Amino acid sequence: RDYVSLAQRFIPADILAYISGGSGQDITLHNNETAFHRWAITPRVMPAPENATTAIQLFGEQLRHPLLLAPVAYQTLVHPQGELATAYAAKSTDTCMLASTLSSVTLEQIAQRSTAERWFQLYFQPRQENTNALIQRAIAAGYQAIVVTLDAAIQAPSLRAVRAGFKRPETVKAANLIDPGSDTPRQHSSGESRIFRSRRENAPTLQQLQQLIDESPVPVIIKGVLHPEDAGLLQQSGAAGIIVSNHGGRTLDGAPASLSVLPAIRTTVGDQYPLLFDSGIRSGSDVFKAIALGADAVLIGRLQLYALSVAGALGVAHMIKLLREELELCMAMSGCATLADIRATELHKPF
Amino acid sequence: RDYVSLAQRFIPADILAYISGGSGQDITLHNNETAFHRWAITPRVMPAPENATTAIQLFGEQLRHPLLLAPVAYQTLVHPQGELATAYAAKSTDTCMLASTLSSVTLEQIAQRSTAERWFQLYFQPRQENTNALIQRAIAAGYQAIVVTLDAAIQAPSLRAVRAGFKRPETVKAANLIDPGSDTPRQHSSGESRIFRSRRENAPTLQQLQQLIDESPVPVIIKGVLHPEDAGLLQQSGAAGIIVSNHGGRTLDGAPASLSVLPAIRTTVGDQYPLLFDSGIRSGSDVFKAIALGADAVLIGRLQLYALSVAGALGVAHMIKLLREELELCMAMSGCATLADIRATELHKPF
Amino acid sequence: RDYVSLAQRFIPADILAYISGGSGQDITLHNNETAFHRWAITPRVMPAPENATTAIQLFGEQLRHPLLLAPVAYQTLVHPQGELATAYAAKSTDTCMLASTLSSVTLEQIAQRSTAERWFQLYFQPRQENTNALIQRAIAAGYQAIVVTLDAAIQAPSLRAVRAGFKRPETVKAANLIDPGSDTPRQHSSGESRIFRSRRENAPTLQQLQQLIDESPVPVIIKGVLHPEDAGLLQQSGAAGIIVSNHGGRTLDGAPASLSVLPAIRTTVGDQYPLLFDSGIRSGSDVFKAIALGADAVLIGRLQLYALSVAGALGVAHMIKLLREELELCMAMSGCATLADIRATELHKPF
Amino acid sequence: RDYVSLAQRFIPADILAYISGGSGQDITLHNNETAFHRWAITPRVMPAPENATTAIQLFGEQLRHPLLLAPVAYQTLVHPQGELATAYAAKSTDTCMLASTLSSVTLEQIAQRSTAERWFQLYFQPRQENTNALIQRAIAAGYQAIVVTLDAAIQAPSLRAVRAGFKRPETVKAANLIDPGSDTPRQHSSGESRIFRSRRENAPTLQQLQQLIDESPVPVIIKGVLHPEDAGLLQQSGAAGIIVSNHGGRTLDGAPASLSVLPAIRTTVGDQYPLLFDSGIRSGSDVFKAIALGADAVLIGRLQLYALSVAGALGVAHMIKLLREELELCMAMSGCATLADIRATELHKPF
Ligand SMILES: Cc1cc2nc3c(=O)[nH]c(=O)nc-3n(C[C@H](O)[C@H](O)[C@H](O)COP(=O)(O)O)c2cc1C
Ligand SMILES: Cc1cc2nc3c(=O)[nH]c(=O)nc-3n(C[C@H](O)[C@H](O)[C@H](O)COP(=O)(O)O)c2cc1C
Ligand SMILES: Cc1cc2nc3c(=O)[nH]c(=O)nc-3n(C[C@H](O)[C@H](O)[C@H](O)COP(=O)(O)O)c2cc1C
Ligand SMILES: Cc1cc2nc3c(=O)[nH]c(=O)nc-3n(C[C@H](O)[C@H](O)[C@H](O)COP(=O)(O)O)c2cc1C
Repeated sequence: RDYVSLAQRFIPADILAYISGGSGQDITLHNNETAFHRWAITPRVMPAPENATTAIQLFGEQLRHPLLLAPVAYQTLVHPQGELATAYAAKSTDTCMLASTLSSVTLEQIAQRSTAERWFQLYFQPRQENTNALIQRAIAAGYQAIVVTLDAAIQAPSLRAVRAGFKRPETVKAANLIDPGSDTPRQHSSGESRIFRSRRENAPTLQQLQQLIDESPVPVIIKGVLHPEDAGLLQQSGAAGIIVSNHGGRTLDGAPASLSVLPAIRTTVGDQYPLLFDSGIRSGSDVFKAIALGADAVLIGRLQLYALSVAGALGVAHMIKLLREELELCMAMSGCATLADIRATELHKPF
Repeated sequence: RDYVSLAQRFIPADILAYISGGSGQDITLHNNETAFHRWAITPRVMPAPENATTAIQLFGEQLRHPLLLAPVAYQTLVHPQGELATAYAAKSTDTCMLASTLSSVTLEQIAQRSTAERWFQLYFQPRQENTNALIQRAIAAGYQAIVVTLDAAIQAPSLRAVRAGFKRPETVKAANLIDPGSDTPRQHSSGESRIFRSRRENAPTLQQLQQLIDESPVPVIIKGVLHPEDAGLLQQSGAAGIIVSNHGGRTLDGAPASLSVLPAIRTTVGDQYPLLFDSGIRSGSDVFKAIALGADAVLIGRLQLYALSVAGALGVAHMIKLLREELELCMAMSGCATLADIRATELHKPF
Repeated sequence: RDYVSLAQRFIPADILAYISGGSGQDITLHNNETAFHRWAITPRVMPAPENATTAIQLFGEQLRHPLLLAPVAYQTLVHPQGELATAYAAKSTDTCMLASTLSSVTLEQIAQRSTAERWFQLYFQPRQENTNALIQRAIAAGYQAIVVTLDAAIQAPSLRAVRAGFKRPETVKAANLIDPGSDTPRQHSSGESRIFRSRRENAPTLQQLQQLIDESPVPVIIKGVLHPEDAGLLQQSGAAGIIVSNHGGRTLDGAPASLSVLPAIRTTVGDQYPLLFDSGIRSGSDVFKAIALGADAVLIGRLQLYALSVAGALGVAHMIKLLREELELCMAMSGCATLADIRATELHKPF
Repeated sequence: RDYVSLAQRFIPADILAYISGGSGQDITLHNNETAFHRWAITPRVMPAPENATTAIQLFGEQLRHPLLLAPVAYQTLVHPQGELATAYAAKSTDTCMLASTLSSVTLEQIAQRSTAERWFQLYFQPRQENTNALIQRAIAAGYQAIVVTLDAAIQAPSLRAVRAGFKRPETVKAANLIDPGSDTPRQHSSGESRIFRSRRENAPTLQQLQQLIDESPVPVIIKGVLHPEDAGLLQQSGAAGIIVSNHGGRTLDGAPASLSVLPAIRTTVGDQYPLLFDSGIRSGSDVFKAIALGADAVLIGRLQLYALSVAGALGVAHMIKLLREELELCMAMSGCATLADIRATELHKPF
């Protein structure tokens, strides 16, 4: 986790504000992290069982550990090689990488670098044909799942980023998009609220979503779910899995901590349904706690960028290794041989 | 909300202390703001409904949004145009403005500038004839409601303002009052407590209040209610509406956070009675939460002065626009098409 | 309350550390103050009743207000006139003063200055005859009650005072004691614990206490009670009243906040029994809260020394006036005409 | 306790970071201390009983007080005489010392210096014969108990120590071990996780532990228990006693505060079973609270090193004396004549 502090020396202040900040006053961002501190893992004295493993089966694939690289846009902001370095690290650590629609190199280039498991994160585009094109390219490039992010159709700008005067440099572009600037919400002169319209235009209709789920040759996973009711509906509509996430506190400041809604959502979708989690994970014990509270696997957001900024592919690979070892430490000390054992573990209050 | 920090460069330190401070040690002031952090808004994944709107019907008038400009005294303290600039901003953003008895320009001048909805905030004067004169002038000038503030008959000075050495400059006066200095409590030499007497003299008797309610040609709204019992009595006595408020923490330090008493008061007055709210609102998500917890609309106090100090009428208009967009964002993300939908939304705990 | 900050300029750092500090790590000291913040006073909108008064009847005497000056040792530490100035302030504000056994001028000198109500605070002395002599002198000098402090037979030194290098100057002495140095615990070479012995030697036996209660011509009040069981026993043994106090957090660091035990003690002793309170009071709203939670009247400790240091007798008188006005403000705003009304008032949670 | 602050001047920054830090982000470390602040000791007014004593019977030995010196590795890091000075202090204050496997002088040298009660803390070694050799040497040297530490088979490095660049100097070695460097976990190139393997290798199997318990001529005590289930099993397997401890927050960051699990463990093992406690104790009132919540006696970790660094043997002896007097003070003020009385005392909430 020391990448958090190291990164401060490697990332320019305005970009750091953009990355580390949340939306608004960072209340949700802050709650994301403190939510983990409300739980404690009680160590056991007996030696770790033999054959302990962090392996997990997800959508028919066997993963060596439950750490995934969250979709994070514009990675050349912090390192010249950007997503290519991340992809390389993913490959070398057997990590599933989620490539963002807003990557600063094309999804095909990323695919070339990463022979490991990889999923494509999709932002629906205002024009349906553009959305379809992205999906087809992703499948053609061998992405094994489509992750639809539903919580970021509009984003409140981070006060921190605004104050730091952050503006995306001209040279960093959304390489996948036909018009690379087209992700910025347009201004409308009509009487209707810019906000409501933008939200509608950048989010799929229920029909569009259902069609994607029904027709996709690869599993469709929904990212950005915080309400049990939504989770239930999405499960019924055939989504292959759900990612409980508040986008790292970057969308609605005032949203609950991601961890706090996890148990209720697990209860709703039942024990067998694939449930992933992100937002606020900073250490291996956070991973352990998320799994104990209902997650099958977790996504790593900011830590990824911090490590990338410090040492490129090596940094990201090292960060994954550290997190994995911290998770193994928690397992060893609490007597868990498998992730299923973690799930069966009761967390306690910390004091 | 960045006006909060910007204002620090535009308002002299002693005036800023006077404005931003609460009474006593600022305990209530502080609780006003943190009370909002105890609630979270859970985003939903479905797209915002069509025809979403922030419109609201209040006292027979249709307002385009539920943000009102709270009565705030002596606005020339922070900008040469004072209330005139505010009135202009109100007009250009379709915002209902509440003009204070203690405005630094006359209520007639304010009325001339603002063709929009406007209400007159009344402080009862020690002499009945002066009170009556104010009311008549307000009605003559086209104010559409009388808002009687009941919580400020005496105020504990802000320690912050005292320490900063704040004294109202000679040039800033209560333009509506015959003797513009007469709002300062007089000293008494008699044996009776200065405090008890001042409170009695500056607050209406029940009879005076009832008479105003009974005879006023425009709705009479009561500002400064924190106890459900009081709310119930005022409703019965015919008040047209109530503003739940602790005067932004500026009267009794030790009063509960305004938000914390809102739900019980809504329960007491029932679903249909007009209930407004202020004290502690700093963002659009605060507005959303206040409405979800029982308010029909909210008043903006300090933010108004901060924006005024930075950019006059433009600043106030921009601040209203920002708040409104933040509110729309919360609505869009939580799937609310109307303010009634907000009211029906359940808030969650943040972590 | 601004005397708290003003005093910092008038009291040398080491003496200030001694006065403002508590024992140990100041945990109890800190809790004393924050305990008040857990309660809120809900203002009411109706005007204050006529004939409102802060008067109170205590032990047959009519006091004009419920603020007493706590026994505070060695007042010449902060002002050359020490207790004489305090006595003068007490007289001019109709305030009952409690003179400490460890006063830096004699109890007779204090009595001469103060014609108002005055009580004598007694520390039992290792030798019975010395204790008796003190009592007789106090009665002869016209003190109207004996207040036996039971919680300070031994005191843990304040870490703050130790760190600041505080040592009582040679010139400041316990003027009432035959050997003015004799209040410092002696060292013992025997095997028995210095602590246990010192506690036994400096505290009265039950018999000694009972005898004093039985034979005293004036009411005997016990100061330093925190446990309901103790309160019940003392009431039965004939003590005229009890002062709930943890000595301003200066004895056992780790003791509960004085305010937190008050309600249970009031329940134990019943509605009519005289119950006083101190520890943590910094404002008039604190006084209001203490009374609402069960106290008949309150003692002011540190604020007294702070005001004394800044402006001598005038300072103490002014501080009392401010506190009283703040209390009146709370009464006026919450619709309380008498202290009995305060007692009947329900406090709320602050947020 | 002022040794905490004094030590900062006597211990080099990197070593201080190593000693004072916990594992990871110090969350457990921090909770260890704040857990004590959630409880208050209510003083009683009655004089302390005669014949009060801090004596305690443990494993058939009479100890004069319930303060033990926790096993702390490599004490020459902070003072040239290291464990020898500590042993001398133990002797002069009748304190039972626990000598660490990782002491920087040999266990025989320590034994020579300390004629008082002493126990040997055992870390199981990867090779059984080395473990056996340690046990035999300890018994030969007159250690009266074997304390098996089970919670430190692997440790997460302290972020604080890492950041401060701490590395154990060449001159400070594990004097008891054949290969003094052998306590550092080895690297493995095999596919199996370094963590899981290291944990298995450095922790005894159940069989090894049972054998030690069954065959040891002296009582075997288990250190590092946090789960009631583990406590119950160890009790049944014949362990002579248990030490509730999270290693001062130095093993699993995210473990519960040691104090928070104590009551449940006492309930599990019953009233008579020897239960010791450490982690977070910084004052005599902390000792009192631990005993009130279920401990028979407590171990002092960091305070020991701090005092050692400041004044060698004298410092440690003085620190023990201060803690004991603080404990006596709490007993005197709460009316406890014995440790059994403490156990029977109910703690209250602090505010
Ligand atoms: C700088 C930045 C860019 C992001 N870009 C995307 C994105 O393009 N698509 C997406 O679905 N999520 C995006 N996210 C959200 C992450 O996928 C993830 O949900 C979040 O970072 C998890 O929280 P954490 O940072 O606390 O681990 C982004 C997050 C950050 C910090
Ligand atoms: C500087 C200042 C002056 C105010 N003057 C008045 C006034 O003249 N009449 C009134 O009813 N309320 C007055 N208020 C209270 C506001 O109407 C409103 O209740 C309060 O500011 C709301 O809290 P907020 O500042 O946290 O939004 C004043 C508030 C401030 C900060
Ligand atoms: C510097 C100082 C000296 C004190 N001396 C005495 C004393 O001689 N006798 C006594 O009964 N209490 C003494 N007290 C305790 C006070 O009477 C009172 O209980 C306490 O100050 C109340 O808490 P407060 O300071 O928070 O108001 C002393 C307190 C202070 C701060
Ligand atoms: C620098 C240091 C070294 C330690 N070495 C050992 C050790 O060798 N064996 C052991 O069982 N515990 C060891 N401990 C843990 C202590 O025995 C004890 O459990 C812990 O310090 C108690 O917490 P406290 O420091 O808050 O009092 C060590 C602790 C510290 C701080």
